[in-house]
Amino acid sequence: MVLASGLGGAFPVLANSFPAKVPVPADNPMTPQKVALGKQLYFDPRLSLSGDFSCDTCHRVMGNGSDGLPLSFGVMGRVDVPRHTPTVYNAAFNTVQFWDGRAKSLEDQAKGPLMNPVEMGMPNAKAIVDRLEQIPGYRKEFGLVFGQKDSISLEHVVQAIATYERTLITPDSPYDRYMAGDKKAMNTAAVAGMHDLHTMGCAACHAGMMFDNPGTKMGTGFFQKFPLQAHNQECVAYVHKYDLDKDPGRFNVTKNPADEHDFKVPSLRNVALRAPYFHNGSVASLPTAVRIMAACQLGKSLSDKQVHDIVAFLGDLTGKFPKETMPRLPQTPGKAIMMQVA
Amino acid sequence: MVLASGLGGAFPVLANSFPAKVPVPADNPMTPQKVALGKQLYFDPRLSLSGDFSCDTCHRVMGNGSDGLPLSFGVMGRVDVPRHTPTVYNAAFNTVQFWDGRAKSLEDQAKGPLMNPVEMGMPNAKAIVDRLEQIPGYRKEFGLVFGQKDSISLEHVVQAIATYERTLITPDSPYDRYMAGDKKAMNTAAVAGMHDLHTMGCAACHAGMMFDNPGTKMGTGFFQKFPLQAHNQECVAYVHKYDLDKDPGRFNVTKNPADEHDFKVPSLRNVALRAPYFHNGSVASLPTAVRIMAACQLGKSLSDKQVHDIVAFLGDLTGKFPKETMPRLPQTPGKAIMMQVA
Ligand code: HEC
Ligand code: HEC
Ligand code: HEC
Ligand code: HEC
Ligand SMILES: [Ca+2]
Ligand SMILES: [Ca+2]
Repeated sequence: MVLASGLGGAFPVLANSFPAKVPVPADNPMTPQKVALGKQLYFDPRLSLSGDFSCDTCHRVMGNGSDGLPLSFGVMGRVDVPRHTPTVYNAAFNTVQFWDGRAKSLEDQAKGPLMNPVEMGMPNAKAIVDRLEQIPGYRKEFGLVFGQKDSISLEHVVQAIATYERTLITPDSPYDRYMAGDKKAMNTAAVAGMHDLHTMGCAACHAGMMFDNPGTKMGTGFFQKFPLQAHNQECVAYVHKYDLDKDPGRFNVTKNPADEHDFKVPSLRNVALRAPYFHNGSVASLPTAVRIMAACQLGKSLSDKQVHDIVAFLGDLTGKFPKETMPRLPQTPGKAIMMQVA
Repeated sequence: MVLASGLGGAFPVLANSFPAKVPVPADNPMTPQKVALGKQLYFDPRLSLSGDFSCDTCHRVMGNGSDGLPLSFGVMGRVDVPRHTPTVYNAAFNTVQFWDGRAKSLEDQAKGPLMNPVEMGMPNAKAIVDRLEQIPGYRKEFGLVFGQKDSISLEHVVQAIATYERTLITPDSPYDRYMAGDKKAMNTAAVAGMHDLHTMGCAACHAGMMFDNPGTKMGTGFFQKFPLQAHNQECVAYVHKYDLDKDPGRFNVTKNPADEHDFKVPSLRNVALRAPYFHNGSVASLPTAVRIMAACQLGKSLSDKQVHDIVAFLGDLTGKFPKETMPRLPQTPGKAIMMQVA
């Protein structure tokens, strides 16, 4: 609470609209060729052990950037993926990646699923490189993007994928148009919801242009305890019903007891399309997620009107999704390069 | 053999190039809106029980129209998909669908995977319709394409998907350019391979513009026994090594003992990209598949040069794949519509 009101005062949380530029690390500049290669890799199931799982299997670019499931299925039908899949849209703006912030960049992040036994399941970097080396089209394209010698490496794979992800951004929401001066872009309910978000304290955590931090630097991470008001009576009921206190969150990363149940504050951009909600995907509807936030983070019970207005505002944070062409995945004429897994 | 040479004489097998038009049934005319809707449905994992399997999961439009696996994984990690996944590219030209020809049209075919327990696993037509009815974008689009009343039905779902599939065709291969008069489009090895295919008897079965039948009518099917020369010594060894005599093929459909081990003759268009080969996906390389065909269908052993030439020709049957835009899948703001399966 102290933190919430403190930050709420310190930062002009609703003063900006969608960032004009996506942050790009100095050692991985964006080029159209790298974006194109990254897109191929992002959609290529040959990057998984079984040969049928790509990044897109869990993070659907044609949909909301997730798969809409409470918990994803993993490679080879595994059902032990421990956390809900967040969207890849606007992940480029996250200062750290994963619910617990354990990756400092999109580049670092992408190594996770590739070699996570329950996600894409590749045994090691060499297996990934070997798979790609067998595909002449990739040998050529990595050479063009990264230089001719030994250009297929895990480092380059994740650099290309991260570069593609930096194109998956959704500007031009009704809220952005409203902030740019088009006062008709949001209706009165949404405007009321915007003010509720500010005055009630939501915007202390859901701050800044992406509604996820009050100006935190890339690589740093802005974490908050969830549930913060664990003794609030309404919250207790939610925690029980939706199993919200099982995941130790950032504690898994730092082993610091102070970080127990700390989670990265997620952006509210496109949140209306991102059901189900929270790190375990247990809450199916946005109005319920809003009530839970009010009870568990602010110790407040909301009126139906407040919920309605806030949900209306959150709906106006839905941006324009990019129109994309499909990549063509390079082939290997005359032979199958998959392992015989079935 | 009788059949092979008989047909070989009767039909001008190499006299035409890629069909100028795709066959369209009178009761399902193609419109751009229907194609767009069909594309969304084709890529939408919400058409599967688990919510993470679409047609594209097994039939990758960005790749070769299959998944490159000997046998696909089914919904919820099932590994009992009994046959190798054929490509969806140019399936519009098949006179019947499936290895055993059990569907007479693309429309009929699409019902199969949707409700097949090991593929997409939907329990019945009602479950599919209910799922789609919850998505406002689909209610609107089905209305526009099929008329406003009760427009979401299994019949319309498969009509739209089939319409999209009719756009997945690959004209303009080197062979087509060669046939159109560009004699430089194929090299001497490929030209020799083309003649081998003709004189050797392959083209008796792999006949016509798609190399799959000698002019068979849509809905009819052209089936051949595989292995036909089951006593040929080289064939016996292949059958044993690649487990080629386990699947009763068309017998499953007709229960006629004469149809045992009969399979639809597959098109050779894009076959170089379609490894692994045969109804069980057991053969990883095209040269081996060619040797097996010669031994098991013609009772012939090929020289290395013959294999080389035939493979060169088959490589020149690779057409141009369509450049496609990605569909945007309609969303359901504020709520998750998946069942909680994990
Ligand atoms: C089997 C499902 C699955 C696959 C495949 C998968 N992911 Fe993820 N992804 C997840 C889950 C679950 C999380 C959250 C894990 C956590 O926070 O502990 C996640 C987190 C992320 C994040 C962090 C987003 C955020 O807001 O913190 C990014 C970015 C991401 N994935 C991109 C990728 C890329 C790129 C690939 C392919 C190389 C990929 N994912 C493959 C399930 C998957
Ligand atoms: C003290 C910090 C804090 C405050 C205050 C706060 N939130 Fe959150 N919010 C979080 C954190 C942390 C999460 C992620 C929780 C999790 O899933 O583990 C979150 C998640 C959410 C989500 C779900 C996002 C998703 O994709 O699953 C919504 C919606 C949301 N907040 C809205 C609100 C609203 C509306 C308010 C005010 C009523 C609010 N929040 C107040 C920290 C806060
Ligand atoms: C789990 C994997 C899987 C999924 C999902 C799947 N298919 Fe298939 N498909 C197959 C297999 C395996 C066959 C061959 C089955 C047989 O012949 O008995 C096949 C056959 C076909 C054929 C016949 C092609 C030919 O040459 O005979 C078409 C067309 C097709 N599928 C289209 C689709 C469409 C459209 C969808 C979605 C509605 C779909 N498939 C979903 C695996 C799948
Ligand atoms: C008597 C009919 C017949 C003859 C002659 C024949 N084929 Fe086939 N061909 C088939 C059938 C039937 C299949 C499908 C077998 C299966 O997978 O069950 C097939 C499959 C193939 C395949 C694999 C296609 C795929 O996608 O898996 C190739 C390649 C092929 N034939 C090439 C040839 C060549 C080259 C010759 C001549 C040396 C030839 N065929 C002669 C009937 C024939
Ligand atoms: Ca979500
Ligand atoms: Ca194949």
